[in-house]
Amino acid sequence: MKIVVIGAVAAGPKAACRARRLLPDAEITLIDQDDLISYGGCGIPYFVSGDVQDEKELRSTSFHMVRDSHFFKDAKGVDVRILTRAVAIDRKEKKVLVEDVRSGQKDELPYDKLVIATGSRPNVLPIPGTDLDGVFTISSLHKAIEIKERIAKGQVEGAVVIGGGAIGIEMAEALQDLWGIDTTIIEFMPQLLPNIVPPYMARMLQTHLEENGVKVFTGEGAQEIQGDGDGRVKKVITPKRELPCDMVIMAAGVRPRGELAKEAGLKVSHYGAICVNQRMQTSDPDIYAAGDCVEVLNAITGKKAYAPLGSLANRQGRVVADNLAGLPTKFEGVVGSFIMKAFDVAIGATGLSLEVARREGFDAVEAIAAQADRAHFIPNQAMMFMNLVVDRSTRRILGLQGYGKMGDGVLARINAVAGLLGKGAIISDISNLELAYAPPFSNAVDVLNTAGNIADNLVSGRLKTVTIEEFSAWMEGEEDHPDWIALDLRHSKEAAPWVEKYGDKWLSIPYDEVRSRHNELPREKCIILICNAGTRSYEIQRFLDAMGFERLMVLPGGLNVIRRIRPTWWVE
Amino acid sequence: MKIVVIGAVAAGPKAACRARRLLPDAEITLIDQDDLISYGGCGIPYFVSGDVQDEKELRSTSFHMVRDSHFFKDAKGVDVRILTRAVAIDRKEKKVLVEDVRSGQKDELPYDKLVIATGSRPNVLPIPGTDLDGVFTISSLHKAIEIKERIAKGQVEGAVVIGGGAIGIEMAEALQDLWGIDTTIIEFMPQLLPNIVPPYMARMLQTHLEENGVKVFTGEGAQEIQGDGDGRVKKVITPKRELPCDMVIMAAGVRPRGELAKEAGLKVSHYGAICVNQRMQTSDPDIYAAGDCVEVLNAITGKKAYAPLGSLANRQGRVVADNLAGLPTKFEGVVGSFIMKAFDVAIGATGLSLEVARREGFDAVEAIAAQADRAHFIPNQAMMFMNLVVDRSTRRILGLQGYGKMGDGVLARINAVAGLLGKGAIISDISNLELAYAPPFSNAVDVLNTAGNIADNLVSGRLKTVTIEEFSAWMEGEEDHPDWIALDLRHSKEAAPWVEKYGDKWLSIPYDEVRSRHNELPREKCIILICNAGTRSYEIQRFLDAMGFERLMVLPGGLNVIRRIRPTWWVE
Repeated sequence: MKIVVIGAVAAGPKAACRARRLLPDAEITLIDQDDLISYGGCGIPYFVSGDVQDEKELRSTSFHMVRDSHFFKDAKGVDVRILTRAVAIDRKEKKVLVEDVRSGQKDELPYDKLVIATGSRPNVLPIPGTDLDGVFTISSLHKAIEIKERIAKGQVEGAVVIGGGAIGIEMAEALQDLWGIDTTIIEFMPQLLPNIVPPYMARMLQTHLEENGVKVFTGEGAQEIQGDGDGRVKKVITPKRELPCDMVIMAAGVRPRGELAKEAGLKVSHYGAICVNQRMQTSDPDIYAAGDCVEVLNAITGKKAYAPLGSLANRQGRVVADNLAGLPTKFEGVVGSFIMKAFDVAIGATGLSLEVARREGFDAVEAIAAQADRAHFIPNQAMMFMNLVVDRSTRRILGLQGYGKMGDGVLARINAVAGLLGKGAIISDISNLELAYAPPFSNAVDVLNTAGNIADNLVSGRLKTVTIEEFSAWMEGEEDHPDWIALDLRHSKEAAPWVEKYGDKWLSIPYDEVRSRHNELPREKCIILICNAGTRSYEIQRFLDAMGFERLMVLPGGLNVIRRIRPTWWVE
Repeated sequence: MKIVVIGAVAAGPKAACRARRLLPDAEITLIDQDDLISYGGCGIPYFVSGDVQDEKELRSTSFHMVRDSHFFKDAKGVDVRILTRAVAIDRKEKKVLVEDVRSGQKDELPYDKLVIATGSRPNVLPIPGTDLDGVFTISSLHKAIEIKERIAKGQVEGAVVIGGGAIGIEMAEALQDLWGIDTTIIEFMPQLLPNIVPPYMARMLQTHLEENGVKVFTGEGAQEIQGDGDGRVKKVITPKRELPCDMVIMAAGVRPRGELAKEAGLKVSHYGAICVNQRMQTSDPDIYAAGDCVEVLNAITGKKAYAPLGSLANRQGRVVADNLAGLPTKFEGVVGSFIMKAFDVAIGATGLSLEVARREGFDAVEAIAAQADRAHFIPNQAMMFMNLVVDRSTRRILGLQGYGKMGDGVLARINAVAGLLGKGAIISDISNLELAYAPPFSNAVDVLNTAGNIADNLVSGRLKTVTIEEFSAWMEGEEDHPDWIALDLRHSKEAAPWVEKYGDKWLSIPYDEVRSRHNELPREKCIILICNAGTRSYEIQRFLDAMGFERLMVLPGGLNVIRRIRPTWWVE
């Protein structure tokens, strides 16, 4: 059997090497238009930052062999042709027309089975100046090497990153933190990581980036990139400001490279992703596709989705190999698990955000838990935030977003939910989830269990909340609620400066005194219950409910959230 | 409604406080024979070590309020009677006979609903000398305070910990690491953490403890504890040695305190645990029980089990409260999630070990993955080991054990599987598990996905392995296999000292040279394939399979496992 694999970054090599192990007699040829292959593209920001010294590390095995064409030949038994572009697929004759990138010489590769792993390309915004010298996308290792060389030569003092997604933020950290470059992120959407994390979490992240020197402007797109007389980038123009810079990183998402498949008459989506079934077969049963060039199924919504992630590419490559060898393996779909480091914090997600869930037609609500990530007496404990998105009527878990100190703590909660999303898990599966417990790692009731408990209280109608956005607007003075009053349940010493500043709308009765002092509370008002995490507020809400108070709302996540957003109305 | 709760450590307070929030009109009384209540018993080793300065921290809220009877009254609205022992339950009259521990004065507490949360007591071995001065169990905060006081006064130079379970190991670390006490662990069973982790992982842990100064003797029980003339402990005698010491910590497991329930005629198990249904109701529907005193269902075997863990106690307490309030919440069962810190490593487990699974009648096998916990180019990456236990015929996941560098990385993998065990997950659920990925946290193919892939290869008959124990016995010379030969696939520089020492049975052909040099291999021998992690060995096994070699076995986990066991035959 002759197998040809087009594309040698992630899905392609995985499919080729596993096919080799399953089909010892097959002839397997892997081609790529580039000379640098089989690299961890997700490592590029760490290469640019200098954490990774040599680009070879990004394309080495764990046992320090560089994955070049010799390696694939000698160690893996796979023929690789680099600098070889696939020009067209002749499905009738079952051959791929290829071209040598240097010489232009053409050739034909016959196949019995073909695998398309052509990946994605970064979006280039339709604005003037994207072709200026100093404007980069993160499209290949070569680009990354060029970026790093420029920086290392001291040619970059200021950088603008267009796009506040994961790659943009990682690149901004690399530029600002390791090289001291004055770096600004601009994001067209009103928040960082749009559609991935809730607005308040994005704000916490933004504040953290700003505290570490990165400037961030959201709700602000790039209108133009301007250069100097020599065609070198000089500034980025947004509707609100001009940002001088010597380098622009365009990290505005990617789109599938599906042209080759489309031209061969294979079915592709409206945005150009190759359509495949769960065995990663295209509309031609002899042609498979995997990685950033394909469309997948979202396991929660059941709808088609685009999820260009290195981890999925590897899994899909394995599924392709299995099916080439007659093993009936399926790629069931994606839930969209995600994590990233941003300076000293980790932020992650799996499944749907509240916004996306509602857009998809779910009657979704979010439970916000703020709790120490490990026992409060363990020295390095830190606050962790979990945002659990659930469907109100079915109690189904739709998604989880998490924010905490850098380390694997957020990962431990995201991973715990990732596998359950495709299993129809409901709230009680999270409340009772048997997470491993010892004081240096967690709490007897883990922050994730707490999120489940809060979701239960919320959906059952026991917990009543104000949204962080509504509360902020009221404090900001943007919205007027003359009938609202804040009841601060913290220790009176903590509450005092707030009472002093906001006396007309800020009452203080410590948590353990409310049972004896509830008569002091104004029954005609809507009382917003405030503490550090939301837990004491909920307890007092239940007590005041029983005392006949009718208008009560808990600030979810409490001042622990607000403290990390640092709004103008924050009191030190 | 009158609710009485007996026992105020974990399950009791949780049940009482949530019942208060759900049933504002109920009269709730919580009693305990101790004066120190509502503490995190799992924190005791961290208190003894000095990480936790003051025992009050173990019984404080995250907002630094001590959970004493005033706190429960003022903040929680729950009446607490400390130093009050429940002597008997009169089920006909529905009242609890109580006694003041100091005065001996008797009283009666009428109830409509009763909750028994009497916890567990530590096993005291039936050997001479357990009543000597200096012999301790970890049975209460008072004992912990006494242990710490003795140490702080410099009265302890040598300690023996009887029991190599989690508490024994945590206590040994506290004594050795923080106080420099010469500490020895003895464990009757042949390994540390028996029934929880596989033998090789226990050996890795043992080597790590030994490298940190703790002596460990397994397969060796305490026969006698001897004292000096003044009744102070002087040494522990085992069949093999005498261990001088000034302190003995007996950490040989716990058993349920079910006597009160039993005497009241409630159904208890043969070992004294209170029988409850999934609503935590005893055989008397007006009496609930929760925490270390009850028997639970194992969610994997479907059999009754005893699982005394603080995290479960809290969840069960919540279930009790819900059912008291008429909410139909269930406690479905346990999978046995576990994690612990031991010096610089974390070790965890969920579900069944291979040994337990086989004992329970499963046709179980284990897949061993050894892989970097994060991208190999991230500076603080370290080797992580996953041991996935699966049922061969059904491919069902039965359990996972993990070992890695201290941090939350092991937790992130254990938690990912914990919730899936009760959902009937199979191997492909682990291979394709969508764990969150970014280079600082994981790999595109996570070590847990790799464990799933290895399990698939193993169960499908593609991967053939030798057990670590068989291989060790051969290298040790304990077992003679004249037809075996080791093929070292590492770089020839790495293999050279091994070839020099074991030339007759140790061949070296680097991984990337086997395809061209396989003719050098002896076809009449059984070839054990060796590399650092097992991955290269599997690839070469598949190649040699195709070349017609018939007797091939991969050393699972490779020398990365052996290196951490440091057997006598290890070559530097």
